Amino acid sequence: MKYCFGVDIGGTTIKMGIFGEDGNVIDKWEIVTHTEEDGCQVLPDIAASISDKIKIHDLHREDCVGVGIGVPAPVTADGVVNGSANIGWKYKDVKKEMEELTGFPVSVGNDANVAALGEMWKGAGQGQKNMIMITLGTGVGSGVIIDGKVLVGAHGAGGEGGHVCVNPNETEKCGCGKCGCLEQYASGNGVANLARKRLEKENSETVLRKANLTAKDVFDAVKEGDAVAIEVAEEFGRYLGAGLAALAVVADPALFVIGGGVSKAGPVILSYVQKNYIEKAFFAHKKAEFVLASLGNDAGIYGAAKLALDSVK
Amino acid sequence: MKYCFGVDIGGTTIKMGIFGEDGNVIDKWEIVTHTEEDGCQVLPDIAASISDKIKIHDLHREDCVGVGIGVPAPVTADGVVNGSANIGWKYKDVKKEMEELTGFPVSVGNDANVAALGEMWKGAGQGQKNMIMITLGTGVGSGVIIDGKVLVGAHGAGGEGGHVCVNPNETEKCGCGKCGCLEQYASGNGVANLARKRLEKENSETVLRKANLTAKDVFDAVKEGDAVAIEVAEEFGRYLGAGLAALAVVADPALFVIGGGVSKAGPVILSYVQKNYIEKAFFAHKKAEFVLASLGNDAGIYGAAKLALDSVK
Repeated sequence: MKYCFGVDIGGTTIKMGIFGEDGNVIDKWEIVTHTEEDGCQVLPDIAASISDKIKIHDLHREDCVGVGIGVPAPVTADGVVNGSANIGWKYKDVKKEMEELTGFPVSVGNDANVAALGEMWKGAGQGQKNMIMITLGTGVGSGVIIDGKVLVGAHGAGGEGGHVCVNPNETEKCGCGKCGCLEQYASGNGVANLARKRLEKENSETVLRKANLTAKDVFDAVKEGDAVAIEVAEEFGRYLGAGLAALAVVADPALFVIGGGVSKAGPVILSYVQKNYIEKAFFAHKKAEFVLASLGNDAGIYGAAKLALDSVK
Repeated sequence: MKYCFGVDIGGTTIKMGIFGEDGNVIDKWEIVTHTEEDGCQVLPDIAASISDKIKIHDLHREDCVGVGIGVPAPVTADGVVNGSANIGWKYKDVKKEMEELTGFPVSVGNDANVAALGEMWKGAGQGQKNMIMITLGTGVGSGVIIDGKVLVGAHGAGGEGGHVCVNPNETEKCGCGKCGCLEQYASGNGVANLARKRLEKENSETVLRKANLTAKDVFDAVKEGDAVAIEVAEEFGRYLGAGLAALAVVADPALFVIGGGVSKAGPVILSYVQKNYIEKAFFAHKKAEFVLASLGNDAGIYGAAKLALDSVK
């Protein structure tokens, strides 16, 4: 049986899986990300774990199609990373180093792009060839799939949807240094910030007046009918709808897949986004559909496995 | 010798060319666009013209690789157009009809996308695989090339850069029905409008106070050092820079090629755009370069020819 490895490198843990060619999961597990000393142990740790699992499952090395890896940073088409703050890497030729460590063909991609590929292959985007996955987590990540392939871009920074400007009047800075990025309004922190700002100028009664307010609190309150929370959700929807309309101007997707922690609020998210998207989108793009992601934290290892399988086609 | 036809359909004329496989132009000419009766004569006229030229140049039909066509409308990946106001078409299966009329393989694309392909093949984008061409004409069109191929999109409306929102506060409507589209500020009419609005609230002396003010007048005045014209150019640059930064968020291009009537003002355009782009772009996208288009009105027939050649690879 042919198989491959899917690896999703995060700042805290590295998720890994063995997949059959059909996308069947043979095993999945996690190891710790050792970010010390510029993260020099990250790739050797992954290689050692791969080697162990081949023994444990009594697999033949010659049946391994390759290793796919998702990295939280821009990754060039050649598999090179020019710095990843989360892992401690500076310049790293991930593809070359990993091929030397494992002896297998290695494919590398940006983590948000790879997650989009995973959702297209085995998740909410099955059957699609043109889709955008947007991940509303601590930040906002996105992956753009064009004609079944990840849009990598000239500098490995294609599909950076969290940093599309949706508010040219903003004076507060995004983590990236610009002002008015989608991430400032549609990430977990972004939603909580929208709520805090509204509470400052609002006297109405609301369950949102509490310490350590989160995006989850906001959407829980929306479900309870809290008027202030509903206004915050509207604002979130306006920014996210405008941001996705801007991404559609380039990509013209058939489908948006919404994932990440904020999306755990469920279908209520879609209603706020889709309405505003339709209002802001170019007429030919209004037909795009919206669904919630379905693979959760496994999207990355699925996508990485798909990357490995596609590279040998 | 293998050859192909490149056809660029416009609302007034249809530009056509015969190209060798290497991109050599064997002949180029124009015919009139008959838009009467839903433009039913457009494709038969093109087919007749192709047939005539094969005879005139004594070409062998079996050496014809195919016909590429650019159309001023969204075109699906299957070569179908769902309405083109400029030509009078409603639904039209351009690929199928044209293959029946000519007996040759036919490839069809959106005109702005096809022009981008032309500039990449034989114009200012030679050697690039990831680029965006933006055409500043009566409207603003754009074509996005990813990994050497035109981004077509799920509904044939990929790369509609003229309709990215760069001003959420705008109350005037764009031709598309939305408010704040890049086209409202960076097209020929857009630049003239920016100037007219500035003159309304401005008392300074300027050569711009004249009837039928055009974008050319504005940039001519910029070259003469007219202070008001320079302010208009700055404003144009801010909107275009912001718009291109938004397109880069998805496409991460190595190069922007700027074409269309407004770009005839020359390198002065680039200085206003690039400065503002760098200010607005995500850090990984700041390295993109800017050049003026070099094929002028021929970009469409070159790109259409390339489309035909690529489709048989």
